[in-house]
Amino acid sequence: MSIYARLEEKNITLNPPPPSVAAFVPFVVTDDLVFLSGHIARRDGKPWVGRLGDTMTTAEGKEAARAIGIELLGTLHAATGDLSRIRRIVKLTVLVNSAATFTEQHLVANGASELLVDLFGDIGAHTRAAFGVAQIPFGSCVEIELVAAI
Amino acid sequence: MSIYARLEEKNITLNPPPPSVAAFVPFVVTDDLVFLSGHIARRDGKPWVGRLGDTMTTAEGKEAARAIGIELLGTLHAATGDLSRIRRIVKLTVLVNSAATFTEQHLVANGASELLVDLFGDIGAHTRAAFGVAQIPFGSCVEIELVAAI
Amino acid sequence: MSIYARLEEKNITLNPPPPSVAAFVPFVVTDDLVFLSGHIARRDGKPWVGRLGDTMTTAEGKEAARAIGIELLGTLHAATGDLSRIRRIVKLTVLVNSAATFTEQHLVANGASELLVDLFGDIGAHTRAAFGVAQIPFGSCVEIELVAAI
Repeated sequence: MSIYARLEEKNITLNPPPPSVAAFVPFVVTDDLVFLSGHIARRDGKPWVGRLGDTMTTAEGKEAARAIGIELLGTLHAATGDLSRIRRIVKLTVLVNSAATFTEQHLVANGASELLVDLFGDIGAHTRAAFGVAQIPFGSCVEIELVAAI
Repeated sequence: MSIYARLEEKNITLNPPPPSVAAFVPFVVTDDLVFLSGHIARRDGKPWVGRLGDTMTTAEGKEAARAIGIELLGTLHAATGDLSRIRRIVKLTVLVNSAATFTEQHLVANGASELLVDLFGDIGAHTRAAFGVAQIPFGSCVEIELVAAI
Repeated sequence: MSIYARLEEKNITLNPPPPSVAAFVPFVVTDDLVFLSGHIARRDGKPWVGRLGDTMTTAEGKEAARAIGIELLGTLHAATGDLSRIRRIVKLTVLVNSAATFTEQHLVANGASELLVDLFGDIGAHTRAAFGVAQIPFGSCVEIELVAAI
């Protein structure tokens, strides 16, 4: 089954990359690597504001990370023209807006990781760093960047 | 107009890479990618100490990011021997020393991003992640790392 | 002297990669680059919990970073089959669980950097970004990710 059939099966619609709010671009393709900018969590088209361990639960953070995963797929589609050109999801960096006491960044990050493995299978298995940050642009709860090989 | 002519026009002088204060190097060239170490903000040759949303304004942070951009260009020149060898600025990671309430990391980061786009044009348009961190070595206000393709 | 002889001389035993606690893998090899996931500090097989500038000293943090360096080498061995295939250690990203007042992330990071330079010599000299984060999964004191060229 193709990635697009799996997306349809899961009732996931891809969006074009979010408009840049600053002097940078959503993706760069360089030889066989695709770099994606950090994508922040959005809900209803607006930044999904919150801090884990303070105003948000781990389950909500995981849902936000999954939503970013879908945004990243939309940008990957725009970058490659066809998601089947992806040879490997190489790396996710998952930044979690965290209170000093919150230590479940890995569980939050799973929202995006599990989506990618679910959709891409073995080539969706990626390296990852997840950690807690002091803040994220617009107060968003999670930000994720991605590298893929094509 | 060459990059060097544009730099002269803007009255920007490039410096050699800052001396390493630890067991690492300012750049590594590997095949077609150049990786630059995180460069911290400096002023008058000393770490530019401050925290956004606390002791520094967004405008000051943006100025610090632009100053780091110039340092990164000096290191890129040292890494490549000639800035015209750069095919693309691939990625910036912009770490902003942030109070818990500060959410304008993207505006701070623009200080470096706009400089690169201004100097390199289309090939200066890069991917980017900007976020708030708890601290930076020497208490510096901003730290930026860069990846370029040659 | 081979890397393995140097390791034996230093009485360092490599372990297999730590079991993944989430939906990701410890390493991905893509053409000539090896990406390693963020490895957290462990002691006696458990997360090495602490915050620099609060419950841990710089010397202890440096020791934790060195311990992660050994874990990264175990994962690099698993990724390459033979550490002598490594052409260059390209980059370390060193995340230090930091109180707002702690500004010696570079000294903590040296625990891993010095080990790599000590073992690999010139090809162990790498680019690096070190900074303070709000938290790390499981409350670990340090997390490090690595990119190498083969």
